[in-house]
Amino acid sequence: MTGTRLSIRIDLKNGDRIGPGKIALLEAIRDTGSISAGARKIGMSYRRAWLLVEQINVALQQPGVASTMGGRQGGGAVVTPVGERMIDIYRSIERVARESAGDEFRAVEKIVRKGKRKEK
Amino acid sequence: MTGTRLSIRIDLKNGDRIGPGKIALLEAIRDTGSISAGARKIGMSYRRAWLLVEQINVALQQPGVASTMGGRQGGGAVVTPVGERMIDIYRSIERVARESAGDEFRAVEKIVRKGKRKEK
Repeated sequence: MTGTRLSIRIDLKNGDRIGPGKIALLEAIRDTGSISAGARKIGMSYRRAWLLVEQINVALQQPGVASTMGGRQGGGAVVTPVGERMIDIYRSIERVARESAGDEFRAVEKIVRKGKRKEK
Repeated sequence: MTGTRLSIRIDLKNGDRIGPGKIALLEAIRDTGSISAGARKIGMSYRRAWLLVEQINVALQQPGVASTMGGRQGGGAVVTPVGERMIDIYRSIERVARESAGDEFRAVEKIVRKGKRKEK
């Protein structure tokens, strides 16, 4: 088992970026049914979550997150099919990258400091 | 040709991170022979460059950047062998990840907005 991990960020040609924060937020909104509960789940501020949702919706051809009005909970949010597709593609790129970089990971581990930083 | 690009970040188990900014800075220091010239080359502030160099040196078992004292230019900086190794491994992971994610990249391009953001 290795503790070294790889994160990826997709830089779109329209200038937008899709990285680990936006994807984790999309997944949390999908799992909780609201932006505020999703943000709470991953320890993100509500303000930042709204900002990222706005950026996601601008980056995609159709919004990745939509609000659901009314109902017993007084409205919430859902991840749209295009949002789900974005999550799937991102996780797929991440998985492929991790699987194919095994040798390089072991090489990194040989040159980095072991253990957490300690004050002398 | 695609304009969609992939950046990677390596999260080390000691808690440190190696991402595109640190690697670009290491390469610029290697190419220019100093931290200040390297920072200028990639449009990074001198202050931030020093901070990143410090983080790089703490993350690796041996410093990735060393200062060269004296000489005609009055001292500068060099990338050490372990720093060079870090650059090589990072670029290698990045290349492998990009090469293996071609299908996913085309899938991303189908769902993202074309062109730069425009105000209505």
